[in-house]
Amino acid sequence: MAKEITEREDNYSLWYNNLVVKSGLAENSAVRGCMVIKPYGYAIWEKMQAQLDKMFKESGHSNAYFPLFIPKSFLSKEAEHIDGFAKECAVVTHHRLMSNPDGSGVVVDPDAKLEEELIVRPTSETIIWSSYKNWIKSYRDLPLLLNQWANVVRWEMRTRLFLRTTEFLWQEGHTAHATRQEAIEEAEMMVHLYEEFAKEYMALPVVVGRKSAGERFAGAVDTYSIEALMQDGKALQAGTSHFLGQNFAKAFDVQFTTKEGKLEYVWATSWGVSTRLMGALVMAHSDNNGLVLPPKLAPIHVVMVPIFKGEEELKRVVEKMEILKLELKERGVVAKIDDRDNLRSGFKFAEWELKGVPVRVVLGPKDLQNGTVEIARRDTLTKEQRVFEGVEEYIPQLLDEIQKSIYNKALSYREANSYSVDDYATFKEKVEEGGFIYAHWDGTAETEEQIKIETKATIRCIPMEDKVEEGRCIYSGKPSQGRVIFAKAY
Amino acid sequence: MAKEITEREDNYSLWYNNLVVKSGLAENSAVRGCMVIKPYGYAIWEKMQAQLDKMFKESGHSNAYFPLFIPKSFLSKEAEHIDGFAKECAVVTHHRLMSNPDGSGVVVDPDAKLEEELIVRPTSETIIWSSYKNWIKSYRDLPLLLNQWANVVRWEMRTRLFLRTTEFLWQEGHTAHATRQEAIEEAEMMVHLYEEFAKEYMALPVVVGRKSAGERFAGAVDTYSIEALMQDGKALQAGTSHFLGQNFAKAFDVQFTTKEGKLEYVWATSWGVSTRLMGALVMAHSDNNGLVLPPKLAPIHVVMVPIFKGEEELKRVVEKMEILKLELKERGVVAKIDDRDNLRSGFKFAEWELKGVPVRVVLGPKDLQNGTVEIARRDTLTKEQRVFEGVEEYIPQLLDEIQKSIYNKALSYREANSYSVDDYATFKEKVEEGGFIYAHWDGTAETEEQIKIETKATIRCIPMEDKVEEGRCIYSGKPSQGRVIFAKAY
Repeated sequence: MAKEITEREDNYSLWYNNLVVKSGLAENSAVRGCMVIKPYGYAIWEKMQAQLDKMFKESGHSNAYFPLFIPKSFLSKEAEHIDGFAKECAVVTHHRLMSNPDGSGVVVDPDAKLEEELIVRPTSETIIWSSYKNWIKSYRDLPLLLNQWANVVRWEMRTRLFLRTTEFLWQEGHTAHATRQEAIEEAEMMVHLYEEFAKEYMALPVVVGRKSAGERFAGAVDTYSIEALMQDGKALQAGTSHFLGQNFAKAFDVQFTTKEGKLEYVWATSWGVSTRLMGALVMAHSDNNGLVLPPKLAPIHVVMVPIFKGEEELKRVVEKMEILKLELKERGVVAKIDDRDNLRSGFKFAEWELKGVPVRVVLGPKDLQNGTVEIARRDTLTKEQRVFEGVEEYIPQLLDEIQKSIYNKALSYREANSYSVDDYATFKEKVEEGGFIYAHWDGTAETEEQIKIETKATIRCIPMEDKVEEGRCIYSGKPSQGRVIFAKAY
Repeated sequence: MAKEITEREDNYSLWYNNLVVKSGLAENSAVRGCMVIKPYGYAIWEKMQAQLDKMFKESGHSNAYFPLFIPKSFLSKEAEHIDGFAKECAVVTHHRLMSNPDGSGVVVDPDAKLEEELIVRPTSETIIWSSYKNWIKSYRDLPLLLNQWANVVRWEMRTRLFLRTTEFLWQEGHTAHATRQEAIEEAEMMVHLYEEFAKEYMALPVVVGRKSAGERFAGAVDTYSIEALMQDGKALQAGTSHFLGQNFAKAFDVQFTTKEGKLEYVWATSWGVSTRLMGALVMAHSDNNGLVLPPKLAPIHVVMVPIFKGEEELKRVVEKMEILKLELKERGVVAKIDDRDNLRSGFKFAEWELKGVPVRVVLGPKDLQNGTVEIARRDTLTKEQRVFEGVEEYIPQLLDEIQKSIYNKALSYREANSYSVDDYATFKEKVEEGGFIYAHWDGTAETEEQIKIETKATIRCIPMEDKVEEGRCIYSGKPSQGRVIFAKAY
């Protein structure tokens, strides 16, 4: 191994943290709870952004940008919203520093106190709806379909790189509609868009469902989410979409004139995914050798490692590699030649495995002679000797195959760790083992809360695809119309 | 006119503000000094970002992301830097709100006071160099060539949309080098990259130069900038690149081992452009009818307005337009068909002129019959009748022509408003009239300051292309080696 990482089986949490740091994705900063996203990690995030942005635009949304700061009074306008966010926010109270009168550095200038404190946005419903009030007058102004890419701050007490950080990057969509039905359709469309992105690009099988009241976004009428299962049997909420009803329209008095000339409050949705997706990507696919990146999100698809003795051999091998690199580029494949001459090839192999590059190409003087090449797959850690000719056609196919294979492996894992459970004793056992537990629930907040207290499992979602199935609540024995998914979660 | 705007000649400042708001680029928000960038404005910014990002990557830079917050003590580590930024910063002092004990809404929780205040980044040298300290150990770690796209906050007292806002969006490059020479070359390369972007994409002729000591970035050894001339004769600094010497390396103790095994401090640069470019774009080219967008940055290149009576005619005209739209799309041209049936075509013309769409295509039933089409140019406000056939080939050429023409117009304006002046009386006159004034300066801060007090003109830059020319300072009469550019500036 290039850099020692803790084994996944020994300490999953430490393994995750080691991976993120040692593969060069991110690290903690000098500011409590805030991370630095390093170039390799940011390159993956950029690929996620580019694809999501394309999907948002194709579905009719435009980007805009709203202020970082929210006046304290705005946050308070929606009652549940302030309850949800007041306890964990960064508050700006002053706008100037001054030299310390005692000569020791700088201090806050007490004369520069703001009349009203500003909150660094934890989410932007309030500041955005205060603008929508001026923009929406008539049914002709609807729907309004906006998204913003931004940083947000939530003052988390316990943070973990990507999964839960004080500052994180995300996109937040905020749409306004003339009818309840249209807003619900938008919220549902967006959670399915996230599902498609997770499956197709992140190779992440996710379940789409509706949240129970206790797990809803603060201010939402209904919250939809995509839920993924990590390799330690814990669930991870990877994206949410909210039907906000008329809550924010009423809080900010946003009414529109209908075609019939009546005044009505506007219907709203919001939806978002964040750099948390990076955490899901790492935890879902990686192994003890490092990251396993799905080709569609890998900044580098192919690393080429030359085998050589002396400069002359290196030159000859690299020449051949340069040609292949160009041929791959024409096919949309990004290759990197690792021609560093001060490192053993074994060290290089380990380093690129750690970084999760999907395919490794190894070429030496003997290969040049024999017209052969060695191709290794990161996901299966297998390698094969091949005829060099035609390798530029083979690699793109192999990348497709790897993309599918990573997805199928994660899907098999989830299927092997999904259980239908009908009694509370087995339920508690299974919760301990980890996985998605499909069980009947009586629909009450009390039962949900008791189960959480007793087992630490929460309702991840009420799956959308599932049909009605009569049953009895696992906890209370009361009647239930269908199963929900319980799991311990990140 | 669709929407009344103040004439440029009557009140330039109000004209600018009207344009920005009424064309849908941006508006003020409920938060003092912070703007909302509306979808149309953000679409232009996205085009700027995409092109700059491409140029940064092609010149070897990678993106990363560093925290929004900077510990107060970090900002203080570089003496000039803190002097430059302490007076205008947003200070986070608390991390929680609570219900007001008197029952009236929420207040800051006094128990949630931070041990050390956090500053919302006004620029990121300090937080980035605190990371670089951990990343740079050896000459093998250099150069380090990073950029970040981010929001920053400077607590400006007087704000103007895009030109000076409390929060703005920008990119900031931060590079680390083994030698002084390499860092200087990087800083110079980047200012020339900005020059190329301004000229090629923004159609903005800019002068590249070095700043006088008084106008340098707080913490820089040398600042380079691109300076543009606006239509009111005032200069606008559109981008800067700084050679930071070893100032930040020393402040954060960042040393590296050279090839020869010695310990040395790292050399640094930083460089940035911001949403201020949007202001420059608007002020440089627009007229009393609205924006004039260079095709390379226009979100919509062509607007098509159908002339019709009744649904049947509309349908026939729009059918023809749809075909043209597709043909243009294949050629990389974005067209929009304005088929709203509740607005007069004159109203539509004015609206799209206001929005600065470079080309307007007008088509009616008579055109269908005669095989003709009307094409109007936004930049010259001229129109021509053409044969419809081949118009899909003509329009891309016309867009190229418009791009060049907008640049040439701005260049002619600058040339007509650039003066070589050798006596102080003429100097004062010309400063009043506006324009770039090339004059000799004795190189002292005192003279620079006196001229600023007496005329409000500042040294915009010491042009880089200019050769040595002996002369006498316009103010003090002392010897000078070359002319510098004076102007009143935004």
